[in-house]
Amino acid sequence: MTKSIITIDDLSLSQINSIFDLADEFLEKGAWKVRGRRRSADQFILSTLFYEPSTRTRFSFESAMLRLGGHVISSADSASTSAAKGETIADTVRVMENYADIIVIRHPWEGAARVAAEFSDVPIINAGDGAHEHPTQTLCDLYTLRREKKKLKDLNVLLCGDLKNGRTVHSLVYALARFGADIHTRSAPGFGLPEHVRERLKNKYGFEPHEGDFDEIDAVYRAPDDQSNLFEVDLMLQQPSNRNRHERGRNIDACYVTRLQMERLEGGSTGQYPVVNGKFLKKKRYAKSSVLHPLPRVDELGYDMDRDPRGIYFKQASYGVPIRMALISALLELKTSLAVDPQWKPYDYEVYSSRSGLRCRGSRCITNHDAERRHLVPKFWLVADKPVTLRCVYCEHELKPLLVGGCDSKAFASSSDWKSVKRENRVFFFDEDNARSQGFHPRRRKLKLVSA
Amino acid sequence: MTKSIITIDDLSLSQINSIFDLADEFLEKGAWKVRGRRRSADQFILSTLFYEPSTRTRFSFESAMLRLGGHVISSADSASTSAAKGETIADTVRVMENYADIIVIRHPWEGAARVAAEFSDVPIINAGDGAHEHPTQTLCDLYTLRREKKKLKDLNVLLCGDLKNGRTVHSLVYALARFGADIHTRSAPGFGLPEHVRERLKNKYGFEPHEGDFDEIDAVYRAPDDQSNLFEVDLMLQQPSNRNRHERGRNIDACYVTRLQMERLEGGSTGQYPVVNGKFLKKKRYAKSSVLHPLPRVDELGYDMDRDPRGIYFKQASYGVPIRMALISALLELKTSLAVDPQWKPYDYEVYSSRSGLRCRGSRCITNHDAERRHLVPKFWLVADKPVTLRCVYCEHELKPLLVGGCDSKAFASSSDWKSVKRENRVFFFDEDNARSQGFHPRRRKLKLVSA
Amino acid sequence: MTKSIITIDDLSLSQINSIFDLADEFLEKGAWKVRGRRRSADQFILSTLFYEPSTRTRFSFESAMLRLGGHVISSADSASTSAAKGETIADTVRVMENYADIIVIRHPWEGAARVAAEFSDVPIINAGDGAHEHPTQTLCDLYTLRREKKKLKDLNVLLCGDLKNGRTVHSLVYALARFGADIHTRSAPGFGLPEHVRERLKNKYGFEPHEGDFDEIDAVYRAPDDQSNLFEVDLMLQQPSNRNRHERGRNIDACYVTRLQMERLEGGSTGQYPVVNGKFLKKKRYAKSSVLHPLPRVDELGYDMDRDPRGIYFKQASYGVPIRMALISALLELKTSLAVDPQWKPYDYEVYSSRSGLRCRGSRCITNHDAERRHLVPKFWLVADKPVTLRCVYCEHELKPLLVGGCDSKAFASSSDWKSVKRENRVFFFDEDNARSQGFHPRRRKLKLVSA
Repeated sequence: MTKSIITIDDLSLSQINSIFDLADEFLEKGAWKVRGRRRSADQFILSTLFYEPSTRTRFSFESAMLRLGGHVISSADSASTSAAKGETIADTVRVMENYADIIVIRHPWEGAARVAAEFSDVPIINAGDGAHEHPTQTLCDLYTLRREKKKLKDLNVLLCGDLKNGRTVHSLVYALARFGADIHTRSAPGFGLPEHVRERLKNKYGFEPHEGDFDEIDAVYRAPDDQSNLFEVDLMLQQPSNRNRHERGRNIDACYVTRLQMERLEGGSTGQYPVVNGKFLKKKRYAKSSVLHPLPRVDELGYDMDRDPRGIYFKQASYGVPIRMALISALLELKTSLAVDPQWKPYDYEVYSSRSGLRCRGSRCITNHDAERRHLVPKFWLVADKPVTLRCVYCEHELKPLLVGGCDSKAFASSSDWKSVKRENRVFFFDEDNARSQGFHPRRRKLKLVSA
Repeated sequence: MTKSIITIDDLSLSQINSIFDLADEFLEKGAWKVRGRRRSADQFILSTLFYEPSTRTRFSFESAMLRLGGHVISSADSASTSAAKGETIADTVRVMENYADIIVIRHPWEGAARVAAEFSDVPIINAGDGAHEHPTQTLCDLYTLRREKKKLKDLNVLLCGDLKNGRTVHSLVYALARFGADIHTRSAPGFGLPEHVRERLKNKYGFEPHEGDFDEIDAVYRAPDDQSNLFEVDLMLQQPSNRNRHERGRNIDACYVTRLQMERLEGGSTGQYPVVNGKFLKKKRYAKSSVLHPLPRVDELGYDMDRDPRGIYFKQASYGVPIRMALISALLELKTSLAVDPQWKPYDYEVYSSRSGLRCRGSRCITNHDAERRHLVPKFWLVADKPVTLRCVYCEHELKPLLVGGCDSKAFASSSDWKSVKRENRVFFFDEDNARSQGFHPRRRKLKLVSA
Repeated sequence: MTKSIITIDDLSLSQINSIFDLADEFLEKGAWKVRGRRRSADQFILSTLFYEPSTRTRFSFESAMLRLGGHVISSADSASTSAAKGETIADTVRVMENYADIIVIRHPWEGAARVAAEFSDVPIINAGDGAHEHPTQTLCDLYTLRREKKKLKDLNVLLCGDLKNGRTVHSLVYALARFGADIHTRSAPGFGLPEHVRERLKNKYGFEPHEGDFDEIDAVYRAPDDQSNLFEVDLMLQQPSNRNRHERGRNIDACYVTRLQMERLEGGSTGQYPVVNGKFLKKKRYAKSSVLHPLPRVDELGYDMDRDPRGIYFKQASYGVPIRMALISALLELKTSLAVDPQWKPYDYEVYSSRSGLRCRGSRCITNHDAERRHLVPKFWLVADKPVTLRCVYCEHELKPLLVGGCDSKAFASSSDWKSVKRENRVFFFDEDNARSQGFHPRRRKLKLVSA
């Protein structure tokens, strides 16, 4: 499979850093903005394939490709075309790969970009798939922090606003955790980090998240002293660093503000939404806080910050072009390729896939899309054992099936017995109803009846 | 008038073959896909002018132009702009020809591309005008057959699915007939080739179409032994070939599957729609059948064919770029021009045009469009004599007028007397109501009254 | 601030003429159409940012940029994206300036382009902001007249049709007045030049407009013999010229026809809308009248004019590309820059700006837009003294405030006393209600009570 960027996890820390180095080159000596045009991508066409409109994101990719000397074919909103005729993403991508050498896809269904990558001969970049991932935004956020703070490790980052719905913020949290940053949160009431994000932080990075009250910084996610359970081993993380983290935590290096997602406020008041402005940042611990925002903003970020040197969100936006130039350049192998990092194995789980049994319960998961169900087989990583936890390969929604069955015996048992069923026969079910509806029966009931 | 491609009939067989040779060059030694970029079109701009969205078709043209080294201005859906202000196609094209050197137009009204070509100083390519024509799709279909089968003559081609509504399939039928292929059909019940298509095949190419039952191949359209009534004379067709056709007809060289047009199913069941998959193709006569499909597919083409070497529809899609590169290249005279073929006279009919009398009855004919009626005069070819048959120059809908009248005498008579009316006075009417509503009266009634 | 083109007034007459000279170069020896591609803009990207669809206008800019050798990122309709999320134009532009080197904006709100220019580091071109301005159309109109008539001074121009709503026609009127043309009008009943346009012509250019009846040419706007009150001093205008104007007025040099704006006809009949066709132009005074139309046309311009040598509207449309090439070229300083013209000071008024007091009453003024009100402070030019007249800097709507107040004293008085209030405290109000609602009171009432 061609290298594609679907989630930030598709890149190791060293790969991310090499992309950042390349972006630095494109910026040339610290200029804010890329100007001019190179010739390196002259042989290539980039296609934007947007099933949801987003002028800003689309332009950032198209501008990056043109600045590299490449060419662009652009679809601002494809929703009304082939998809309306019932075409699957797999088919669309296999046609589109003839028209372009790299495809940037945005889709409202979670996992759509992963499906595209599975079927495409050309690299796919995920420009947002529902509430799942938007990895180039995350790259841009991290790059801004690296440029401003000259490091990514040991940063104290405060996340503000809606931490529940914003896809950018979840990707950022995982990435910051990988880089060893300390993460604090200050969310609007009812808009804290979701349970599944906190659980993943805990399981994978040993963080102990804690949602505080509104008036104070909510929590300190702290990389533990014992890093042995970190999946990723990176040179940067192997240096001694975690001493006195809590103390240093008093000074906030960066404040990452997220937009009030009006469309998701179900009757909730916005009165208590934290507004980051000069008044908010008066305390001493914010004296050197860079203020980031993925934009567009509404009311959560004061206009007074436009004239405050701490407000660097327009600079952050300007980094969108060089970072995407660097990523495209790497994927097309124009200057450098993304050398495989043997130590980075983010998907090193057993894969479970079956047409029978449970399906992903992610309400916007691509595997539940009408057209895609025709050919797409549900696929999960078995990410934990006790209890058995399946993570959808496409949308990363997690399930905890209660039962496991065997296709041969048509009998089911507790999912904790999953190793007793041969891999090729294995079928997981949510619960008994789910299993019985597919003609399965309890494993030992018959035996019991016989013995009775 | 500049050379434009509105229907496949605008190209002679030798012109088609020279376009195919050029496409071969662009593909370079049998590669599936065109990569890289040339410089030959650097001085030119192609404009896509789409009144109906179609990302796939639009991208195929834009990618082709970029691969030629040219430039693109793109309108994904113009419906809401000038057309909404009541502008005619004639006016739009006369403005757009200043912005581009070649225009690709897609329009829901049949004949729109022909009107554009009549008013434009730059070449027009029809990318689909309603249910009328989509000649570059037809070129791509034929090119795929030529590449796979190394010939177009004497092929046995089976057409499957909806043969009634699909515009691509009618164009393909005429083109295959011109190349001397045998055509079999297997349509869903109620979705056979329409009467007017079968009639045209019979009148122009001497084919005797026959719609069979669902379970068997329906019919064999056979080029007759006596080819004297073929309008087109082509070297390829002059060789001895038609012997034993019926026998060879048992082996199907290619199976062309068309999409179930959901939007046109009026309460009909889709249960009997033929599905082409491994099971369908089990019989010996399909052992070497290439399976083509214009895509997108829905359910009529099994996903198992993706892994079957006979399924070449993605390869077919990949030929869309080189074939369009070749066509654009020829129209812009970059490498070669489309030399006039003196033997190919597809429109060698007497033209009838009048503001009075009948208008085209094609329900989506451009001459019936509100804005266009302001300036567009109905125009027909007189394609048959007994009975008098008029074919609309724009949408190719055929009419059989019962009456003819004279503008001077205001008298009408049977249309079979049409030669008795001077050409400049001639007006055709559907029937008596039509004639009387425009103030015409029977030619001899007065005389009769006098004599009575 | 970077040079931007928001209204035709942003250009002095000498700047306009230097743009026209450059356009002549692009046309090369009188060719109608620009063909081919230059290399001068290869380092630059132009972005079209259209909040309202307009394929024609968008294509004219994109084609111009490509013909210059530049590159384009294109948004046909941005309305559904960031703006829908509540983003301000100021924020959008500060992001977009990273993606492009020049931005072409079209927006339904009046003044939007001016706001964009205030916040952008790259040049902004206004491609239409509501009913306010569309300066490149005006440039194209003037350029067509200059090419056809070899001059712009002393022309007799007849304006026909809807002179009330068409934005192009108001800009054209002001520009023609600056060039010293005579202007006649022949509007549909109820569609004459609005009061504010006639007033501005009178105040600024000394014209005495007069709306006549439908059957005759309505009025002669005549540059007065005494030109001392002309704000602009231009070499062309300093020559003796105004003798015998009225007599020469009998022959019409050009007839500028405007579209029937169907969407703005409130139940009005279109029966009396003047139709310019061969019949209309039969009188001797039209024998050499060039007929212009900004297109698209509906019924107000006869199709017979297409074959009449006086109909030059398609030629006019063809000038859209060279004139935009010249403007882009000048703004990007590719060949020449727009040298500052020290004598041209169109905005040489005192500026009044206050968060309190009155706001602009332009119903589509950008300062009244929900999102923009968050940060945009109303800003006016004090264009006249008796009575005090404020012109909105953004939409150019004019207000005549009755009262002026002082922020310190919270007292108000007649606006004619405005100089008695210190500039930094000055607040204008529409009327007493407006003032009282903001906690202000009459200046002397208290004094009176004391003295009573």
